[in-house]
Amino acid sequence: MIDNADLRECAVKTDSKIILLVADGLGGAPHPKTRKSELETAHLPNLNALAGQSACGLTIPVAPGIAPGSGPGHLALFGYDPLKYVIGRGALEAFGVDGIDFKVGDVVARGNFSTVDSDGKLLDRRAGRILSEQSAPLCHELNKIKVDGVESRVYPVKDYRFVLRLRGTGLSDALTETDPQRLGIEPLPVKAKAPEAEKTAKAANQFVHKARQVLMEEKQANTVMLRGFSGMPDLPSFGEAFKLTPAAIAAYPMYRGLAAIVGMKVLRTGADFDAEVKTLHARYQDHDFFFIHYKYADAAGEDGDFDGKVKALEDLDKYIPRLLDLKPDVFMVAGDHSTPAILAAHSWHPVPFLLHSRLTLGEGIEAFHEKACALGSLGAMPATSIMPLALAHAGKLAKFGA
Amino acid sequence: MIDNADLRECAVKTDSKIILLVADGLGGAPHPKTRKSELETAHLPNLNALAGQSACGLTIPVAPGIAPGSGPGHLALFGYDPLKYVIGRGALEAFGVDGIDFKVGDVVARGNFSTVDSDGKLLDRRAGRILSEQSAPLCHELNKIKVDGVESRVYPVKDYRFVLRLRGTGLSDALTETDPQRLGIEPLPVKAKAPEAEKTAKAANQFVHKARQVLMEEKQANTVMLRGFSGMPDLPSFGEAFKLTPAAIAAYPMYRGLAAIVGMKVLRTGADFDAEVKTLHARYQDHDFFFIHYKYADAAGEDGDFDGKVKALEDLDKYIPRLLDLKPDVFMVAGDHSTPAILAAHSWHPVPFLLHSRLTLGEGIEAFHEKACALGSLGAMPATSIMPLALAHAGKLAKFGA
Repeated sequence: MIDNADLRECAVKTDSKIILLVADGLGGAPHPKTRKSELETAHLPNLNALAGQSACGLTIPVAPGIAPGSGPGHLALFGYDPLKYVIGRGALEAFGVDGIDFKVGDVVARGNFSTVDSDGKLLDRRAGRILSEQSAPLCHELNKIKVDGVESRVYPVKDYRFVLRLRGTGLSDALTETDPQRLGIEPLPVKAKAPEAEKTAKAANQFVHKARQVLMEEKQANTVMLRGFSGMPDLPSFGEAFKLTPAAIAAYPMYRGLAAIVGMKVLRTGADFDAEVKTLHARYQDHDFFFIHYKYADAAGEDGDFDGKVKALEDLDKYIPRLLDLKPDVFMVAGDHSTPAILAAHSWHPVPFLLHSRLTLGEGIEAFHEKACALGSLGAMPATSIMPLALAHAGKLAKFGA
Repeated sequence: MIDNADLRECAVKTDSKIILLVADGLGGAPHPKTRKSELETAHLPNLNALAGQSACGLTIPVAPGIAPGSGPGHLALFGYDPLKYVIGRGALEAFGVDGIDFKVGDVVARGNFSTVDSDGKLLDRRAGRILSEQSAPLCHELNKIKVDGVESRVYPVKDYRFVLRLRGTGLSDALTETDPQRLGIEPLPVKAKAPEAEKTAKAANQFVHKARQVLMEEKQANTVMLRGFSGMPDLPSFGEAFKLTPAAIAAYPMYRGLAAIVGMKVLRTGADFDAEVKTLHARYQDHDFFFIHYKYADAAGEDGDFDGKVKALEDLDKYIPRLLDLKPDVFMVAGDHSTPAILAAHSWHPVPFLLHSRLTLGEGIEAFHEKACALGSLGAMPATSIMPLALAHAGKLAKFGA
C-alpha cells in the first residue's frame, strides 16, 4: 500500500501496538534423512501454541524462485516492493555504521582491506581477515587522503571492512566495482557506467591509488577494494506511510541500517537477543510499532548447521512468552527469507508467517512450520502484504472507498 | 482482463447465460464462543450441496488487509481493478438516484441536511435524521437557488440525504468537503485543491450560503453540508469489454448505481430479494448476464448481529433452487467483501466464492464457508478474476495466443 495514495489515506493513527518479530532465515527445508524441516524438528511449544490461535500463511519475499538478500527480504516485510526499491550494498553497509553522516548527493561504497603481491596481483581479498584493532588505525590514515575536488571519508565497519563516503557536487553511483572476485589478477579500475559518473570514477580511482601509497608498508592490508557504490536511497517514510511511530531493535548493524533507511527510530540495544527483548520492554510505551530482529536462525542455516538452526529456533521459542507479556494488539512472527541448512544459503522457499490478535481465534493449525502454515487462512502471499494485514488487525486501517 | 486488449479480444458472444449472485458482506469471522463463522453456523443445505458440485475459492476484493466499501467491492467483482477505477462518493450516490441526469463535465456531491445553532456551530450532522416527507419539499426549495455562472440542481435521496449536481463549463471535482466530522464547530468552506477547481469551489460555497438563507426558519434542517465531490467516472463498458448484454437487479439504489456506472442495464424491480428473483425470472430471456444483489447479510453484519446474519444467510439459501431452476450455464455466488458480525463493519477477510457450471463437478468441498472455500481449487484470488472464470466456464472465452 506504500505506493498507492488512496490506500495510504486509509491508515489511521490509534493507540494500538504492533510487534513484528523477524526471525532471520526462518524457513527451511526437509532434512534428507528425517524429511522434516528445521521448524518441524524443533521443539517449539510456544510458537506452536501461538499458531493455533493465529492467522497463518507463507510469505513470498520477492517472487517465486527468487532468494533474496537481507535488504529486499526486510524491505518486503516493511511493505516496500523490493523490485522497485533497490538499495545498494554500499548504502546498506553505510547505514549500519553508527553515527555516519550520509546524505542525498553523497556516494558511498563498501571497502575491503586486501592483500596484493609486489606485482599488484591479488593474494587475499580480505587481507587475512584482520581484526578491527588492526584496521581502525589504518582507516585513520586513509582519512588523511586528499582527492581532487571531492571530499573522501572512511568509516571503519568491522575487521577488514570499511565504508568510503565521497562528498561533492555532481557525483553519481553509476560505477563498476574494483573487486575482480578472484585471486591472481590485479584489482579492476572503477569505470563510469554513464557519462555523469566520470567525475566520481576519477575520484574513486584516485582514492584507491593514494590508499595503496598510504598502505604500502603494510604486510596484509596493503591495498583496498571498493564495491557496491550507491547514493542515498530515497524511500518513502515507513512511519508516514502507515501512520506509525516505529522503532527498530536489532543487535546487528545491517538490520539497524535497513530500519534507518525506511525512517524507523533505531533504539540503542545490546549485543544479543536477550538485550533486544529487554530494550523492547524498556521502550514499549514510546512507540506503536516495533521491529525486533533475531539473527541466529539465519547464521546457523548459512553455516549448513541443521542442528544448530534447530537449536536457534528452540532458543527463540523460549522468548515468546516474554514478548507476549507485553500484550501487543498485533504480534507477528515472520522471516525475511528462508535459509535451509541443506543449502547453507538464503533460498526462495516461502517463509512461515503468523499473525496473532484478538480477532484471530485460530484455524485448526497446530504447529508453526512450512507445511502447517501452507494450510493457513492467509495462504501464500507477497511479504509486502503483512503490514496492511497488521494495520487491519490492529484497527488502524479505515475502509477503502464508499 | 478489462485493461488488456489482447485478453478482451478472446471474449466471444454466445447464447450461454451467466448469473452472478452477490451476497453483500458474505464472508464473516468466527464467533468467540463457538469459533464458527456465520456461514459455518448457518444451516445452508442448498449452498452446501452446490459447493460440492462447484469450483470454490476465496476472493480478495482489493488487497490483503484492505476493507473495501461497496464501490470497490463490486467493481472488483465486475472485473475492474478497484485501485485504478476509483469512484467518488458523490457519483456513487448520484447514480443511485433514479432518473438523475448526470453526464461528463458535471460535478456532483453528496448532501446532508444538518442542524446548526445560532452561532452557526454544528449541532446535528444529520438534522435529526428527518424523513423523506420532510426533506423532499426542502429539496424543492433548494432548487430555486441561482448560483452565478453555474446551474445547480438538487435531487432528494432518502431521509436527510440529497445529491447536488453542478453543471457548467470548466468545473472540477478537486474540492474539499464541508463536513468537519465533529460537532460544536462551524461547517468548513469548500476549498479548491487545484487552481482549475476555483470556479467550482466558489459555486459550491455560494450554494451553501444561499441554502442557509432558504432554510433559515427550519428547526432541524437549517443548513446543508456537502461531501464527496466527484465528476462522472469514465469506466470502460462492462458489456463491451466482456461481449455481454448485462442486466442488474438490485433493490437498493447504490447497487443500481454501481451497475449503471459500468453500463449494465438496470432492471426495474421491487423492494426486496423476492421481487428481485421474480424480476430475474421475468427478464431471463432478454440478457446473457445478470448481476443480482442480496443486501441482508451485510446489513446484519454491520449491526454486529451474528444471529441476524446467520438468519439472513439461511433466508438466502432458500432462494438457491429458484435461481438454479433457470439452468444458467454459469452460476456464481460471491460477496463484495466480508462483514463479520464481531467487527460490525466491512472487513479485509477474503470472501467465499463458488462457481457452478456443467464443467465443475465438485472437488471434495462439502460446505460453503471460509475454511472450506480456502481449500478449493480456485484458491485465494483477486476478485477481478471471477469474470474471466465465468466467461471461460460459459464457453465465452477463446484461446489466448496460437
